[in-house]
Amino acid sequence: MRIDGLQYANWSEKVFRQMREGGLDAVHVTIAYHETFRETVLNFERWNRWFELFPDLIMKGQWASDIDRARETGRTAIFFGFQNPSPIEDDIGLVEILHTLGARFMQLSYNNQSLLATGCYESEDPGITRMGRQVIEEMNRVGLVVDMSHSADRSTIEAADISDRPIAITHANPYDWHPALRNKRDDVIRAVTQNGGMLGFSLYPHHLKDKSDCSLQSFCEMIARMADRYGVAHLGIGSDLCQDQPDSVVEWMRVGRWSKEIDYGEGSAANPGFPPQPAWFRDNRDFGNIEQGLRATGMSADEVGAIMGGNWYRFFEANFGPQGRA
Amino acid sequence: MRIDGLQYANWSEKVFRQMREGGLDAVHVTIAYHETFRETVLNFERWNRWFELFPDLIMKGQWASDIDRARETGRTAIFFGFQNPSPIEDDIGLVEILHTLGARFMQLSYNNQSLLATGCYESEDPGITRMGRQVIEEMNRVGLVVDMSHSADRSTIEAADISDRPIAITHANPYDWHPALRNKRDDVIRAVTQNGGMLGFSLYPHHLKDKSDCSLQSFCEMIARMADRYGVAHLGIGSDLCQDQPDSVVEWMRVGRWSKEIDYGEGSAANPGFPPQPAWFRDNRDFGNIEQGLRATGMSADEVGAIMGGNWYRFFEANFGPQGRA
Repeated sequence: MRIDGLQYANWSEKVFRQMREGGLDAVHVTIAYHETFRETVLNFERWNRWFELFPDLIMKGQWASDIDRARETGRTAIFFGFQNPSPIEDDIGLVEILHTLGARFMQLSYNNQSLLATGCYESEDPGITRMGRQVIEEMNRVGLVVDMSHSADRSTIEAADISDRPIAITHANPYDWHPALRNKRDDVIRAVTQNGGMLGFSLYPHHLKDKSDCSLQSFCEMIARMADRYGVAHLGIGSDLCQDQPDSVVEWMRVGRWSKEIDYGEGSAANPGFPPQPAWFRDNRDFGNIEQGLRATGMSADEVGAIMGGNWYRFFEANFGPQGRA
Repeated sequence: MRIDGLQYANWSEKVFRQMREGGLDAVHVTIAYHETFRETVLNFERWNRWFELFPDLIMKGQWASDIDRARETGRTAIFFGFQNPSPIEDDIGLVEILHTLGARFMQLSYNNQSLLATGCYESEDPGITRMGRQVIEEMNRVGLVVDMSHSADRSTIEAADISDRPIAITHANPYDWHPALRNKRDDVIRAVTQNGGMLGFSLYPHHLKDKSDCSLQSFCEMIARMADRYGVAHLGIGSDLCQDQPDSVVEWMRVGRWSKEIDYGEGSAANPGFPPQPAWFRDNRDFGNIEQGLRATGMSADEVGAIMGGNWYRFFEANFGPQGRA
């Protein structure tokens, strides 16, 4: 089973066919970075059209059982998430509305301070806000998973503690392997995984040691060490693949509407666009390379299978439904 | 089985308890008259809170099978509908979005001309619009039922013909029993029922012969005649009960934001508010009176059961899911 814990491609029939070639049974896709509620609904509508146009390649994913149905019918189940709480605006009632529409992950902040939590690029992190505590409780109630991939350390550790249900860092790597602002320190990963949560390893070059030149061996040996440190059951892939996107999209991700100035995020003025992917992970067809690379570290087939998809499956199964029900 | 094809009460624990006392297994409730998409979502949110607050009395209804679940657990299943297409604004993609949120009926117009069809108070009725044809097709595809209760005659007959699936007049009476502008002429009812559609008989006094003084016998004998004329399988109740609403609400229904002047609708300057209900149908506890009144006309227990709920059940079962699936 292969499940990717995060992608944001420039969606097309080509990408959906490559998902099939890569054997992807499920992908969590981002449908909001800075969008308001209404703009997010337009993004749900675009996906509804893709489901209507390509019923043999993809299907809407709402529950882990949809992954079984996708496997049986040779399709990829698409699960939705937000990288920012902007879709709920200031309205806690939208948590359940968006879950009903199919949202399954929501980051509490994206780089900046939000109404709920602090982002990883802020200089101060006062932790989870008043509204943030209420929203985490409501997300727990309906089955919308807290994702802290772009949040600051204190906010992340507090979210893991406040949440009654496991949370996720869908796409990031350990800071001590590659000290990027978006990668996570040991105490942060520990807080998430000790509470039953998940870490998805990212293949976005700015998150990789040696960036675009990162070797498959270095990436996979890092994962093997993290399995020893945090337990293999808490690890998956969250590729952060942004295939076929123009550079204007990475600018939108970074700047949205919040600034009049260019913010280079993890890039720089000299290198403002999407960095090239490593040669061994260009697109959805290359998940087999990671699987082989993990086997080459000496991990067992069961361990590799858990990281490639089994752990996400179990996590989806436990955390997408209403609290107190399987 | 008892199913009411339309209500718009001032919802409260009291009303929900009276639904249980009246043995209502399901009620189609209006959640939009003039609301935009975002305002309609706020109304879904209010219902989500009621479902959370009163889980022993009511539950969200999406499919006919939810009525079975409601009966087994002693609750009333609440199904949602709109009396106007205002919730989809000018965006056909919102048809599927709102169906996903739980909408199951949508009127194509409410008294006035809409983007889709003509209302029953307009002097000219040019029929279904260009967008209207597309929206009917999309409603057919996802399982959102076309309701023409407040539409004009030509638009209604055209909608019944254009629609691949049966349509409904959820709440109205025959014009030849009581010639109100909102009641329906024979050719209109025939177009709807001949295509497999449903007519729900209204208990709103302006739709009743002798209005608030209408007798139970007159109402039930009219239904028995209509069963002979159109076939008992196409008839149900759509009480239009607006219990506990202040008169400001009937003004909102009539005027919305479309006029700066007062429009009295079926009332008058001398009688602008909600008219008093007939003594034999004051609220949800009185559905038993209608059942007895129908038996008194000589209809069989099976026929009465079909009109009190069985027909709506079968209609819900056939028409709320995606086209081509049961």
